[in-house]
Amino acid sequence: MHLDTRRLFSAAAHQLRASEIRELLKLLNRPQMISFAGGLPNPAAFPAEELGDLVKKVVKEHGAEALQYGPTEGYVRLRNAIARGMGEHLSIAAGVDDVLITTGSQQALSLLSTVLVDPGDVVLTASPTYLGAMLTFNSTLARVEGVHTDEHGIEPDALEAKLQELEKGGKKPKFLYLVPTFDNPTGITIPLVRRRRIYEIASRFDLLIIEDDPYGLLRYEGVAVPPIKALDTEDRVVYVGSFSKILAPGFRVAWMTAPPALMSKLVLAKQAQDLCTNTFGQFAVFEAMRENLLFPHIEKIKQLYHRKRDLMLEAVSREFPKELRWNRPEGGLFLWVQLPEKMNALDLLNKAIERNVAFVIGRPFFPDNRGHNTLRMNFSYAGDSDISLGVQRLAEVIRSEMSRDPDDDSHDHVDVF
Amino acid sequence: MHLDTRRLFSAAAHQLRASEIRELLKLLNRPQMISFAGGLPNPAAFPAEELGDLVKKVVKEHGAEALQYGPTEGYVRLRNAIARGMGEHLSIAAGVDDVLITTGSQQALSLLSTVLVDPGDVVLTASPTYLGAMLTFNSTLARVEGVHTDEHGIEPDALEAKLQELEKGGKKPKFLYLVPTFDNPTGITIPLVRRRRIYEIASRFDLLIIEDDPYGLLRYEGVAVPPIKALDTEDRVVYVGSFSKILAPGFRVAWMTAPPALMSKLVLAKQAQDLCTNTFGQFAVFEAMRENLLFPHIEKIKQLYHRKRDLMLEAVSREFPKELRWNRPEGGLFLWVQLPEKMNALDLLNKAIERNVAFVIGRPFFPDNRGHNTLRMNFSYAGDSDISLGVQRLAEVIRSEMSRDPDDDSHDHVDVF
Repeated sequence: MHLDTRRLFSAAAHQLRASEIRELLKLLNRPQMISFAGGLPNPAAFPAEELGDLVKKVVKEHGAEALQYGPTEGYVRLRNAIARGMGEHLSIAAGVDDVLITTGSQQALSLLSTVLVDPGDVVLTASPTYLGAMLTFNSTLARVEGVHTDEHGIEPDALEAKLQELEKGGKKPKFLYLVPTFDNPTGITIPLVRRRRIYEIASRFDLLIIEDDPYGLLRYEGVAVPPIKALDTEDRVVYVGSFSKILAPGFRVAWMTAPPALMSKLVLAKQAQDLCTNTFGQFAVFEAMRENLLFPHIEKIKQLYHRKRDLMLEAVSREFPKELRWNRPEGGLFLWVQLPEKMNALDLLNKAIERNVAFVIGRPFFPDNRGHNTLRMNFSYAGDSDISLGVQRLAEVIRSEMSRDPDDDSHDHVDVF
Repeated sequence: MHLDTRRLFSAAAHQLRASEIRELLKLLNRPQMISFAGGLPNPAAFPAEELGDLVKKVVKEHGAEALQYGPTEGYVRLRNAIARGMGEHLSIAAGVDDVLITTGSQQALSLLSTVLVDPGDVVLTASPTYLGAMLTFNSTLARVEGVHTDEHGIEPDALEAKLQELEKGGKKPKFLYLVPTFDNPTGITIPLVRRRRIYEIASRFDLLIIEDDPYGLLRYEGVAVPPIKALDTEDRVVYVGSFSKILAPGFRVAWMTAPPALMSKLVLAKQAQDLCTNTFGQFAVFEAMRENLLFPHIEKIKQLYHRKRDLMLEAVSREFPKELRWNRPEGGLFLWVQLPEKMNALDLLNKAIERNVAFVIGRPFFPDNRGHNTLRMNFSYAGDSDISLGVQRLAEVIRSEMSRDPDDDSHDHVDVF
């Protein structure tokens, strides 16, 4: 008799379902397709020239360590370099013991979920928020609740109202998860004044904040805003950083810094999850920092993405009907677009794919399934000429969809930023 | 007010506690220390000469892919090579879709635990069993129950009795976890006849088996025994393999093969846990396979460890008092030693460390805290001359401990293999 493994599934397994976005992305491999859908760095942003010799050197000079198991906490010289880097570049005070290396920032979120969330616990996020975070929180059976977002990120008043409402119901959320700088999916950066208010509210309600910051160093214009962690005088912010967008995702090296009591549990959870992050990648990243390759390289990435962002903004301004709204992100990888209220981004996407251009619909990023008329456009991955051509194709599909609908001027009623 | 993160801990966090073994290993960095404690491959077993050029080539020729995010399932050419390798070297029939790349085999265990275990679920293991597996199962709040083990591994009669007992109590275990070949910690290989009996019992009780096989290809003498997965006609065995012991742990590349319905949940759980295994390491491992470097290299590792095993067995035979018992593992990394019943391995260890020699006590490997008089000795890591010297030192400590105790001939009463 064959074993039916489905009868063995845990509650978490029943909760885990394929995201429609990821399933969609698999369909976009046609060579003619221009995709603004993924969130991938551009391969031209990888320092391949320098890394070839660097990885060879890692094997030759450090092979006995770099090819071996390493401590769960991570390679100590890398942790040290990150602690110093956080001080210099992010105004975050941290020592080597405050840094835990993780297998991508996704693992940081998974570890936090493991040690903080029991089934049914409330977790707060912006609405919309990073889909991968929501999937992870869901996998530990959290109840994810979104906080309303305007063009400057989550609204402090909405956060406070939500916390009061939960308090009345006898619920204390386990944490508030945010991507405060160049948010995924919206590209929004929360201004400093609002960061202070959010922190003050968190303090008042004794709330833990998880600050996920994969894009913070990729600013193309405007003035840097300090991370919320830099304002943290009460040990209530966990900071998550990553080398995926500033060096290369293929090494899967990220890090987190958390209050000490939490840190020791995170280390144990990581031990149970994968023992240690791949040592080889950690050595490669450390050598890139030690040889002073990383920060000059970030400048090159910024030039590349700055140009691509400008190309996309220009094309969108030129091509998109006036009924659409979009933002002007000062960094990161994403543009956020709002269609007229009566339009549906999913219908548009199906038509767009027929015309060989793709984006990601906004709805799955909303914990409460709103945002049917929103979409995310990635500007880091496509080639320069494809950006113009893709936006042109997309604009044609949009115009054709709008002309199908006689009542196409309902954009006054949108309620998402 | 500072946030006390401890009040936010999940039930899993409360369950996660530092293992006494790992804490101990941190103390063994003294340069004079001869350690048989860890489970590390010998750095001399890493093909550093070949890997230097290989990793450079990965960057130069495949950088755009190898430095990028990859599919959660893993790099398709590596999955394909593994599927073929399992057929050729392990008699396991598998296609590319049956292979999921994981971040070390530890992650395979963690994913299985996530999608199969709800709090309080029973999970069966050998007693003793691999500590890292137990920690992972515990982290998902499983109730780990050990099955009695003799010199040929878990006893089929004991397994059957345990299953009957659970059935009477209305409990169905989620799975049976085994390291059937060159077990950690015992070095035992379950003979084919017994594998068949275990499979037949699993079939009768409709039980899922997880076969963890990191050492199977490291056989130094005797005839290869097929994995339990090779006997699996009913899709009831999950096989977990790893490159850590046959190439290098530093890449953190392992794999698992599982029945399709289970596989799709494992992929989703991995997506939530770390998105994908480090792409760079996957490309490096694939290139090592493609350039036909891997299998000739395994022969070299076997020569090295065969010699070290013989050195340890010779030293132990020469030096250890006749009251001790130990086995002769035909492969793998570990020797399992039984002290006289009245001796305590932890007391011995404290004395041994004073004499600059270390091992791992057996008790933490027992789900039921038995095995106070057992210990594990690793023979892969120490230098050749250190093996003789370390065993000599250890034997002196043992003799001195035995002479302290007038009643030192109680070894007839041992009940662990």
